[in-house]
Amino acid sequence: MSRLLAIDWGSSALRGAVLGDDGAVLDERASTRGMLGIEPGGFAEVFEAQFGDWMDVPGTRCLMAGMVGSKQGWVEAAYCPCPAGLDDVAARLTRIDPGVAAKGRDIAIVPGISCEHDGVPDVMRGEEIKVFGALDLLGVDRAVIVLPGTHSKWATVEAGRIASFSTVMSGEFYALLRQHSILSRTLPEDDGALDTAAFDRGVAHAFEGHSLMQTAFSVRTLALFGRLTAVAMPSYLSGLVIGEELRCRPLDGVGEVVVIGAPVLAERFSRALGQRRIRVRTFGEEAAWRGLWAIAQRQPAGFAKGST
Amino acid sequence: MSRLLAIDWGSSALRGAVLGDDGAVLDERASTRGMLGIEPGGFAEVFEAQFGDWMDVPGTRCLMAGMVGSKQGWVEAAYCPCPAGLDDVAARLTRIDPGVAAKGRDIAIVPGISCEHDGVPDVMRGEEIKVFGALDLLGVDRAVIVLPGTHSKWATVEAGRIASFSTVMSGEFYALLRQHSILSRTLPEDDGALDTAAFDRGVAHAFEGHSLMQTAFSVRTLALFGRLTAVAMPSYLSGLVIGEELRCRPLDGVGEVVVIGAPVLAERFSRALGQRRIRVRTFGEEAAWRGLWAIAQRQPAGFAKGST
Repeated sequence: MSRLLAIDWGSSALRGAVLGDDGAVLDERASTRGMLGIEPGGFAEVFEAQFGDWMDVPGTRCLMAGMVGSKQGWVEAAYCPCPAGLDDVAARLTRIDPGVAAKGRDIAIVPGISCEHDGVPDVMRGEEIKVFGALDLLGVDRAVIVLPGTHSKWATVEAGRIASFSTVMSGEFYALLRQHSILSRTLPEDDGALDTAAFDRGVAHAFEGHSLMQTAFSVRTLALFGRLTAVAMPSYLSGLVIGEELRCRPLDGVGEVVVIGAPVLAERFSRALGQRRIRVRTFGEEAAWRGLWAIAQRQPAGFAKGST
Repeated sequence: MSRLLAIDWGSSALRGAVLGDDGAVLDERASTRGMLGIEPGGFAEVFEAQFGDWMDVPGTRCLMAGMVGSKQGWVEAAYCPCPAGLDDVAARLTRIDPGVAAKGRDIAIVPGISCEHDGVPDVMRGEEIKVFGALDLLGVDRAVIVLPGTHSKWATVEAGRIASFSTVMSGEFYALLRQHSILSRTLPEDDGALDTAAFDRGVAHAFEGHSLMQTAFSVRTLALFGRLTAVAMPSYLSGLVIGEELRCRPLDGVGEVVVIGAPVLAERFSRALGQRRIRVRTFGEEAAWRGLWAIAQRQPAGFAKGST
């Protein structure tokens, strides 16, 4: 059991990597065969087409995370409640029935994580492995970690376990305002370039303490009075949204935040957190492989043993 | 000059009323000929078709408010800066050139109002006449007034003048989440009925202090865990949005809020403000006619005199 096929199977993407005994990435593959495009019963076939040759190498087992473990996925992997650490997750793997997996392959799915605040539940699937990976790479057991995106996840780690987390729909709110709101009539195409001055101005305005429902209107009025150029609007709006996200987080006394995500988002979060004098450590997608590898280390004899 | 034709000409609707010398409404008309559907140069023709017979009665003059005074309207009426009261507005009417208006009619447009907070401007056009109307009907010169809607307007009135105001895009955010967000996949059609328990629950959750970007996700997770029925979702989401709107307003120490708007929205704001132990007085669209009448009283000799 020296080789691990680590898979992050999300709603719209399927990514895999072969890891050596020490966790080193030996090879990687990515495709657009996300969970949403796969019919019930069709997962085994997609898996074989993408990764069958890798699994045929003796001594290879596979650990998956992401929406593949949701109710609409291959097999449902029940949520692991917070606080959740590597041991908690490793003890709750859901094995793919060897009669369903081709050639009796040893494949298991990592559970998502759930928590509750004020009587309201929250969930994540797939982000938890990146959190564990970043902790392992940093060698720390306390951290505040954000995974920016359509639905950002903010995790607070204590004693090596995810103590709590929150989902913030910031990326989706930005897209809604860009594409469907009254602002979309005047906003130019977003070419992805960052106007740093406009972005910083948006962050600063958001920090002044109003709701995004109020600050978003300033995109319109600043333009109306000739105080914001059309080309700067997307960066300014991005600053308003990320600024609101940070304003509403309990970050007082937090000296450092770990940001896991694509470089373009990591840069924006670094700038915005800088306005609150918070240092940033960044990781990319490699954190996912490290997290799956760290979980697999907890089940050295194969996943069947620790499965439900 | 004993008859006033009062007109509220907005983006998507055109409403008019004939008022007697004492402000009593003698007759009303409404149409869908809002400003957005009218070509430049086409306003006089629409006006005549809708109201020409009323204006033909000797001694009738006309005062208009709303987007008809915007850059894309009939004639641009420059914004009146805050603080703005009846006298300020009455002194800044923009008269329609008698050569453009048919038969040399006496027609003027009320200016919109502007203000500025933290270097960010805000504007309203049309809501200010309802604020003035409500003040006149109440006989007060201090108030906190909200006009709920796609873009809610919150006005603080001191010494009879609008001291400041803010625009909150709450109605638009609700519509974006209903129609275009990930929540739209699971939200049933909104039949307009209010599930008061679900609404109150949403308001209470919003008051706990998170951003709508975070609380909106609870619609999804509560449903995922079977703690919110599908039919209750629209009311719960409405409570989250209106609760966020109220949470971000400086309402500490405010004992009463005047709500001007349609009964269905006024009811929701009354319920939500009730959770903060704030009393509510409500007015409907009649406030617009009263406001225009009160402005006209400041120019008894006809609008030409006070026009720019």
